[in-house]
Amino acid sequence: MWRALLPVGRDADTGGYHRFAWTPPELECRAWFADEARRRGLALEHDRNGNMIAWWRPEEGEGEPRVDRGHRAVLTGSHLDSVPGGGAFDGPLGIVSAFAAVDLLRERGATPRRPIGIAAFAEEEGARFGVACLGSRLLAGAIDPARARGLTDGDGRTFAEVLHGAGLDPDAIGPDEELLGRVGCYVELHVEQGRALREPVGVASSIVPHGRWRLEFAGEGNHAGTTALADRRDPMIPFAGMVLAARDAAERNGTVATVGKVRVVPGGVNAIASSVTAWLDARGPADDAVRRTVAEVGAAAREAARPHRVAVELAEESYTEIVDFNLALRDRVAGALGGAPVLPTGAGHDAGVLSARLPTAMLFVRNPTGVSHAPAEHAETADCLAGVEALAAVLDDLARG
Amino acid sequence: MWRALLPVGRDADTGGYHRFAWTPPELECRAWFADEARRRGLALEHDRNGNMIAWWRPEEGEGEPRVDRGHRAVLTGSHLDSVPGGGAFDGPLGIVSAFAAVDLLRERGATPRRPIGIAAFAEEEGARFGVACLGSRLLAGAIDPARARGLTDGDGRTFAEVLHGAGLDPDAIGPDEELLGRVGCYVELHVEQGRALREPVGVASSIVPHGRWRLEFAGEGNHAGTTALADRRDPMIPFAGMVLAARDAAERNGTVATVGKVRVVPGGVNAIASSVTAWLDARGPADDAVRRTVAEVGAAAREAARPHRVAVELAEESYTEIVDFNLALRDRVAGALGGAPVLPTGAGHDAGVLSARLPTAMLFVRNPTGVSHAPAEHAETADCLAGVEALAAVLDDLARG
Repeated sequence: MWRALLPVGRDADTGGYHRFAWTPPELECRAWFADEARRRGLALEHDRNGNMIAWWRPEEGEGEPRVDRGHRAVLTGSHLDSVPGGGAFDGPLGIVSAFAAVDLLRERGATPRRPIGIAAFAEEEGARFGVACLGSRLLAGAIDPARARGLTDGDGRTFAEVLHGAGLDPDAIGPDEELLGRVGCYVELHVEQGRALREPVGVASSIVPHGRWRLEFAGEGNHAGTTALADRRDPMIPFAGMVLAARDAAERNGTVATVGKVRVVPGGVNAIASSVTAWLDARGPADDAVRRTVAEVGAAAREAARPHRVAVELAEESYTEIVDFNLALRDRVAGALGGAPVLPTGAGHDAGVLSARLPTAMLFVRNPTGVSHAPAEHAETADCLAGVEALAAVLDDLARG
Repeated sequence: MWRALLPVGRDADTGGYHRFAWTPPELECRAWFADEARRRGLALEHDRNGNMIAWWRPEEGEGEPRVDRGHRAVLTGSHLDSVPGGGAFDGPLGIVSAFAAVDLLRERGATPRRPIGIAAFAEEEGARFGVACLGSRLLAGAIDPARARGLTDGDGRTFAEVLHGAGLDPDAIGPDEELLGRVGCYVELHVEQGRALREPVGVASSIVPHGRWRLEFAGEGNHAGTTALADRRDPMIPFAGMVLAARDAAERNGTVATVGKVRVVPGGVNAIASSVTAWLDARGPADDAVRRTVAEVGAAAREAARPHRVAVELAEESYTEIVDFNLALRDRVAGALGGAPVLPTGAGHDAGVLSARLPTAMLFVRNPTGVSHAPAEHAETADCLAGVEALAAVLDDLARG
């Protein structure tokens, strides 16, 4: 499975992945997912929000019906999409491991009493439409469907248009109580994205508060050679001041703040920019620290912009408060593993979004360098195999109970 | 003519033009140019370097042969390509005015003794391949053809590939002594790009020293949420420091310095950048002031990068020393206009490049706001018509003499 996915959407120069929701590489990943489901006789469900689930319902064609009707399913899985230039593991590892865990359970003659579903959630990274975990947010009712429909990608195409192009009905997106009602819990396996995990497999305690903000600096485009310094309204200068202020604010507040995406209009070498749009990612151990960081960055941006007669707008694109994973489920997952290190994470996940509606848990596979969202992201094969064993044990335990 | 060109490559939202060399909108402009030449019975010449010239040689089919064989031609014209999101006037005004001036001269029964050529120089803005005035530089021998062949556009396509795709022989580019030998002088009409010109039409005295430099900041891509501040090698931060340093250095040295183009890799909201590439445009009244500005920016960038363990490279992409236009030709042009204000410009032009090989001169048409390289660039129709009259008078005078 890993070999089949590796070349899809991979930049030959950097080795980074570019699998954005509903673009050709991500559609190829979806086709791979459907094939893997078909090869195993798993029933493929396309939900209303662009997510896919491959269902193992042992009563359907595997001898005795063992699933107790009415018992809610155990859901696992992750996502297929990537950040720009992302690593191979972030997302796909959880899905490949889920298929492999089902294979293991079948080989060992496991007898689940509950259906086991393998989910591929749409637009987890938010790399195309700007809102992370868009598929799970829609499913869980954590984003207004009208707002989601109007989100645009870098080419100005709306989420509604793209859904329609993919054969989905944009008017049908939104909370799906019927699907949620069929699921008892969600357990996501994911590559760890820091260096804190020293064992092959760990269990998540919480996701720290995190969010994305957009800062628009509007100045006046003009000629780089003929416009006197005093006549300029160059938005690049307060943008630069904001970048430095974000680092300072993060240090002051014990948070992290990152500017990793910038759009300069018009973007000519010999033209003063008319506008600069920057995205700020901020996270920290507590809501107030993150909020204070962003407020300080906004204030610094406005102050830096004033002498240059540049207008600044700060808008929140998404914000997720601290997620403490369900304690009972976490203990049960750790118990099924015979004990495992428990650690918080600074990364957002569909499991965090869904935790508002379901008991959710996460397994992490060790990341020796801590690099993620970059081509060098890595996990050792032995650790990945340990992850599959752990996920199989957890699914077996949960689907029996 | 103006109405025909206006919609070509125009962004409906911003009103800015995107006419990059050999892209569909620029090819449409070239087709328009060929049509205008054909309609007037002008002989169309494609030179070896991607430039086009429409020749009025009155001996060819307009009654008596009046052109003295062996007399070198008077060349006028400008360029059809634009910066990203540029204005309507920068470039096309010089070409439209040249055709209109030829029309006027014919209406008035002018009897030129020299051929008059209308040139459209390729890639004047350098918006696609990064080197401004690429067509005239190649013609004049002001750039190594091998270096030009290897220049790449934003999609990684080389200039050689693009030339080949356009039906030109990339191995044939370079100095064209035969063509230069046929030309006696070059007079370019252009919209003024500052606010210094208070009359409808002026004459250029000089082009200030100007150049482009590229700064590469190489750090390490990583996850925006899980990477501690101390572990980061974030190239965005020294890049921001460099932007502020450029403004300070320009103020200190009496120059202008602009960062209008930035490339962030990978460019994800939730990813620390692995690299940031920025382009610096610097100009000033004297070579040493410009050189000092750039050296100070480079030193500041390196200093800002060190604590973040980011590597910095500073490379010169192009540099043009001060251009003083030919005094005799300038006086003659001003004389043909019955006197006109004479002013320097901070903008580079093909006339500046060609001045190393030919007597060249420039006419400027007033720009009421001084805005250029932006959609709001404007010139009043009355001033444009005055520009046509002035150019006709100059061409008439020069082609008689």
